[in-house]
Amino acid sequence: MNQKEKYVLQLQKKARQRKKDKVFIVEGMKMFQELPKERLLQTFVSESFLRSHGSLLQGISYEIVKDAVFADLSDTKTPQGILAIARQYEYKMEDLWQKKEPLLLVLDTIQDPGNLGTMFRAGEAAGISGVLMNQETVDIYNPKVIRSTMGSLYRVPFYYSNQLSEDIKKVKAQGIRLYAAHLKGSLSYDQSDYKGGTGFMIGNESRGLCKELGDMADSYIKIPMCGQVESLNAAIAASVLLFEAARQRRK
Amino acid sequence: MNQKEKYVLQLQKKARQRKKDKVFIVEGMKMFQELPKERLLQTFVSESFLRSHGSLLQGISYEIVKDAVFADLSDTKTPQGILAIARQYEYKMEDLWQKKEPLLLVLDTIQDPGNLGTMFRAGEAAGISGVLMNQETVDIYNPKVIRSTMGSLYRVPFYYSNQLSEDIKKVKAQGIRLYAAHLKGSLSYDQSDYKGGTGFMIGNESRGLCKELGDMADSYIKIPMCGQVESLNAAIAASVLLFEAARQRRK
Repeated sequence: MNQKEKYVLQLQKKARQRKKDKVFIVEGMKMFQELPKERLLQTFVSESFLRSHGSLLQGISYEIVKDAVFADLSDTKTPQGILAIARQYEYKMEDLWQKKEPLLLVLDTIQDPGNLGTMFRAGEAAGISGVLMNQETVDIYNPKVIRSTMGSLYRVPFYYSNQLSEDIKKVKAQGIRLYAAHLKGSLSYDQSDYKGGTGFMIGNESRGLCKELGDMADSYIKIPMCGQVESLNAAIAASVLLFEAARQRRK
Repeated sequence: MNQKEKYVLQLQKKARQRKKDKVFIVEGMKMFQELPKERLLQTFVSESFLRSHGSLLQGISYEIVKDAVFADLSDTKTPQGILAIARQYEYKMEDLWQKKEPLLLVLDTIQDPGNLGTMFRAGEAAGISGVLMNQETVDIYNPKVIRSTMGSLYRVPFYYSNQLSEDIKKVKAQGIRLYAAHLKGSLSYDQSDYKGGTGFMIGNESRGLCKELGDMADSYIKIPMCGQVESLNAAIAASVLLFEAARQRRK
């Protein structure tokens, strides 16, 4: 493995390195093609990708990597043979409420990469204006997160807050109403009106929303549940709430 | 590793072995405690589990496994130190519609273990009466599926069909209306009435619902999506539909 290849591997594995250099790795054809071109820094293709899909690379400069090396660089079991180094996004918090009647997700320490990525994907589909999350939330540029966003990473503004409780005050100062999905909620989630500026607060997969943040919500809401289910998966809960907001907003 | 331990490992890894012996492995304290006692065949605990949680095992006979061996038997990175061999469920298809106004999931070749487990968990919460799925759907007794059901596996009837299209006819003969979530759908999912017997058909993560099955739906529905999202994750789509049905049924 040469120096450049070693660097790619580091970027795949180390959030710190990605953060320091403000870059991330995009893998697979779909994610590569959807990447806004001004973010593309460097492209790597495997030898067999070049043979079978070389025609897709017109106008793009790339480095060729031996198949065996590419397999080591890839974060997936069955690599597609194309990856790129891309420039990270640098949103300001205000970017999260640029749409009329903003619709936000406010995330407290979401740990599962699939959950975070899925929330971006479902969130974009439901029309969110942005995602505010604390530093303890998994890195959006983690390869598994990127993959499960299915490209929504490129289109949904997000902001990692150093002090979420302070930033939540700023959200509220915008007139955005915050709803905490909480077992304590007495109001069923479909009994609130989400047509105005709305934010849904979603807590960590095991311990839920921390008390300090939960106390800042304008309203506790609950998703009524049958059977003996104690809680929903975080991405499912977020989606049920967001699509209820989308449903109301279509009326 | 002794013979019994090797057998546990086989059951963790091989769907065929599980099917042959009609058993499965339950891991972790929550899943162990919720397991209906008549299904429990044999319990294994690690030495350190016995030291710290031995009091929880009153009245249960168990085998003690060295910590290092337990780590090999476990399907998780941080084993809790307790697992059990349990007897599989044997539902008949009719068990799926024992509730009044049944609410079914009909699954075509769901491949991701987390998706299947999450559908059981969200499904129980939304009040489903059962899950009908084809043989190509991932094994419900796969350790990752079991884990992500969070116990709903014990409470939601399910049936693996050898010939899904034939069995779908039987579902329809019960007066259950079938809705296919489909990009071709012209009707928004919140425009249908799900208060009567209802089944939602959900297709494979990559290729969607196969045409033959889709053609059997009484109605195509769509989940309206903003942005450039092409599709939702299968478990998210299922949950959005099921919680809309639950919402209507609460009224």
